[in-house]
Amino acid sequence: MNLFPMISKNKISEIRKLHQKKFRDAERLFIVEGRKSVEMLLRSDFQIVELFATEEVYAQNWAMLEQQPVTLVAPADMERISTLSTPPELLAIARQRQDLGEVPNNELLLVLDRIADPGNMGTIIRTADWFNFRHIVCSPDCVEFYNPKTIQATMGSFAHVHVHTQALVPFLRARADQQRILGAFLQGESIHNFAFRPTDIIVIGSESNGISPEVAALVTNPTTIPTPAAHRATAESLNAAVATSIILYQASKSIQ
Amino acid sequence: MNLFPMISKNKISEIRKLHQKKFRDAERLFIVEGRKSVEMLLRSDFQIVELFATEEVYAQNWAMLEQQPVTLVAPADMERISTLSTPPELLAIARQRQDLGEVPNNELLLVLDRIADPGNMGTIIRTADWFNFRHIVCSPDCVEFYNPKTIQATMGSFAHVHVHTQALVPFLRARADQQRILGAFLQGESIHNFAFRPTDIIVIGSESNGISPEVAALVTNPTTIPTPAAHRATAESLNAAVATSIILYQASKSIQ
Repeated sequence: MNLFPMISKNKISEIRKLHQKKFRDAERLFIVEGRKSVEMLLRSDFQIVELFATEEVYAQNWAMLEQQPVTLVAPADMERISTLSTPPELLAIARQRQDLGEVPNNELLLVLDRIADPGNMGTIIRTADWFNFRHIVCSPDCVEFYNPKTIQATMGSFAHVHVHTQALVPFLRARADQQRILGAFLQGESIHNFAFRPTDIIVIGSESNGISPEVAALVTNPTTIPTPAAHRATAESLNAAVATSIILYQASKSIQ
Repeated sequence: MNLFPMISKNKISEIRKLHQKKFRDAERLFIVEGRKSVEMLLRSDFQIVELFATEEVYAQNWAMLEQQPVTLVAPADMERISTLSTPPELLAIARQRQDLGEVPNNELLLVLDRIADPGNMGTIIRTADWFNFRHIVCSPDCVEFYNPKTIQATMGSFAHVHVHTQALVPFLRARADQQRILGAFLQGESIHNFAFRPTDIIVIGSESNGISPEVAALVTNPTTIPTPAAHRATAESLNAAVATSIILYQASKSIQ
């Protein structure tokens, strides 16, 4: 029973374009896939442009979907429009946020410098959400927030955290009078007993190269995650999302 | 200038078989790729069976490679034998450890129940190494330690951490008299001020389903990573590698 028009070849090709950043940028749209993520999208203030469902999930989720016009798609078509290797039951096209407003200066703030991997980016956003960081500032050369792999890895948290893009040097310079700028390095003050303040800015650098020199020059408090004292460290570093998460955990704990 | 015989078609096909678990299991071999990982392998007690290098890296790394017989391979052949989308300069075949010995009962121990994603598994091993956990016990249905994606994600830490595979219920039952068994749950005692002991066993469950019921029944201390007190949590969970890392950090800090 097809209650709605099936998806056209043209529409499939339009959606597939959104797999690429240049078309997402041009159209100011992005793709959200999977039941959990689409559910978070529906509950958020993002504007939904189109919603696609397989018949099976459409039948199951009537209540959640009923305020939305839904296009039914065959599994084979869902496979075509999806970016995932296992196609989802639900896929949404939503509008990118136009105006995120000012970055607040009265709460813990996370700043990401050149994070390159969308899985790491998404995991960081998910963890930030858990620890109640509501804003993240990314350098322009970070992997894109609206990359489908980033969105996927947030596990729905993309809808709760505001991810700003700013040139970091002017941004941090403007903050340096009022706020401390902490940086995560391999050497620095241990975060174990570090007295975080509720207005601290925490800067995390890229997976392979850490914080860039011009940003590092603005850091007021270099910090580090220590290895156990007696331990001849054999691991050379932590994964970027792991290091970020440990610092967010410690900061969140410290200011409570 | 080819100092060594180039790689044969047969050899390429033999190595490509090791991309699959069943052949790794049968041959008791595994693949290590990339300069950093191979360097860690060379410094470890793993037995190296064969080493393949592109001419470029071979010329650069003479000192490190000179105790090893090396086969030079053309970039196109490296692409064939590699599991990576960007082929490495170095690839090694090594022998899987035959006997890991007893799991110690006098140090912090990490137990993984059904971790399914090799990226998570590798990241957990890397973090364990950083925090000086020398042994991990995996349930038989965890993703394979010798999966090339796991090895890759450890960033060389595969060489420093002993990863045992054991049926968890009998293993934990045998430990329950002498050691506490902590489990990571969405509800439990906060880890913030939890007094970890140097002999604690920390159990982490799968990405989607947490700790399995039969293992959960053996947990003596359910623990949790709290969200900030005033925060109406919008994130439903943490990534498995992130949650593990935060607990290892807190445990390592607590027992120092």
